[in-house]
Amino acid sequence: MTTQELVTQIHKKKSFLCIGLDIDLAKIPSHLLQEEDPIFAFNKAIIDATHHLAVAYKPNTAFYEAYGLKGWKALEKTINYLNENYPELYTIADAKRGDIGNTSSRYAKAFFSDLNFDSITVAPYMGEDSVVPFLEFENKHTILLALTSNRGAFDFQTKKVDGEEVYKKVIQTSQTWKNNRNLMYVVGATKAEYFKEIRAIAPNNFLLVPGVGAQGGSLAEVCKYGLNDEVGLLINSSRGIIYASAEANFTEAAALKAKELQQEMQEILDRKF
Amino acid sequence: MTTQELVTQIHKKKSFLCIGLDIDLAKIPSHLLQEEDPIFAFNKAIIDATHHLAVAYKPNTAFYEAYGLKGWKALEKTINYLNENYPELYTIADAKRGDIGNTSSRYAKAFFSDLNFDSITVAPYMGEDSVVPFLEFENKHTILLALTSNRGAFDFQTKKVDGEEVYKKVIQTSQTWKNNRNLMYVVGATKAEYFKEIRAIAPNNFLLVPGVGAQGGSLAEVCKYGLNDEVGLLINSSRGIIYASAEANFTEAAALKAKELQQEMQEILDRKF
Repeated sequence: MTTQELVTQIHKKKSFLCIGLDIDLAKIPSHLLQEEDPIFAFNKAIIDATHHLAVAYKPNTAFYEAYGLKGWKALEKTINYLNENYPELYTIADAKRGDIGNTSSRYAKAFFSDLNFDSITVAPYMGEDSVVPFLEFENKHTILLALTSNRGAFDFQTKKVDGEEVYKKVIQTSQTWKNNRNLMYVVGATKAEYFKEIRAIAPNNFLLVPGVGAQGGSLAEVCKYGLNDEVGLLINSSRGIIYASAEANFTEAAALKAKELQQEMQEILDRKF
Repeated sequence: MTTQELVTQIHKKKSFLCIGLDIDLAKIPSHLLQEEDPIFAFNKAIIDATHHLAVAYKPNTAFYEAYGLKGWKALEKTINYLNENYPELYTIADAKRGDIGNTSSRYAKAFFSDLNFDSITVAPYMGEDSVVPFLEFENKHTILLALTSNRGAFDFQTKKVDGEEVYKKVIQTSQTWKNNRNLMYVVGATKAEYFKEIRAIAPNNFLLVPGVGAQGGSLAEVCKYGLNDEVGLLINSSRGIIYASAEANFTEAAALKAKELQQEMQEILDRKF
């Protein structure tokens, strides 16, 4: 998907919500456990109930790998279901991959060519040749970890390199790489004050923002500094939406939570555009 | 596996060789492509031919993910084959994973509990809470990326943070984390001169060393600075061994290449111990 198609969808739905499909069989409604593939059954129900409120879905691969082959099969079915039934939706493989060049190209093949995700999250530690194989794909985005939403973000990401924080160095350096127009960045909502400085370095790139809700970040604060002329933000919520209820009404509860966020986003968009 | 068991195996075999199982169907002997599971057939043949010369095997998950479900099934069969037939061998999932705490614990479950690998490589960018869930497993090692063997290592890893290179900061900081005795580090052979300084910070941890051979690193140089009283090194070779020949004699060719490295290691060990 092109950036422009994503932006068009955002304006049409008045939403820049991304829903994280972090599957956990201990948290889904127990009646689904009798299904042949409970993981897919849950994802399908959540997607069907929320697709008009969200623009993107983000399965985190860890939650699927934890269920072995069964998990990978469910991941495959989920991305196929999204691509076949809701081709307008933007899809993110939250895989945080990254390896030396010829190895990264295998991950890129797996997630872009075979599974046909629109984007993948990538860790920057191994530098340019570990990221460029992802950037080579046309109309696919590489979402580089910059400033994450967890406590450990302060261990290395905010330390100063040549007088500048590591995460800023990552953003700046990556802006010089080939096909950098295909870059997005992960920036945690828990640190809204950082968005101003990030926008000074990366005015045009989309930012994928975890940490609103469950992790305590404020949507209004993030938007204040993070929005750009093409919106430029995807706000992710996972647990807060998909596990809003573990009862029979779980899809309604999820849609309600998604609707709350979408309406807040609509107000913000209506004020700006 | 405990560190002590690994050290015992090294002295018994006079080898600290790790063989990287980076599967590529375009490079394996063509007659194997008729097998029901060519990936596993190749790995099994390589392991059977070299297990007495190596102490560790390291499948890189990217090469398996690139073949989808078929690849994951082959990875599962490979680790099971290793654990059932050669339980003395040390196994490394070269997965370079890492995510926020509750998500990392899913990866740890997948690779340590379910697949029963002895260790996994982990990216440090997201800090302490992204690594600690791996360190919690008893008799399992977490192999943190420190200084990798690729060109991109110079983009961020060797940049100075508070007057000290990022990779050194990663090693130093991680030495303060809970269960840090379960840590090993990835240090590329292409930068032998760095080993001296790394040993000053991490005298006791094992170092997993890629980049000998194909990527141009020197075994003698690495050992000069990297060996410690418990050996403390695992030298990895992947392509140089497993793709030594694509003909019918591929197992003999692989064993020959492994033997060359093992003999060089034997001389080094005999001089020191």
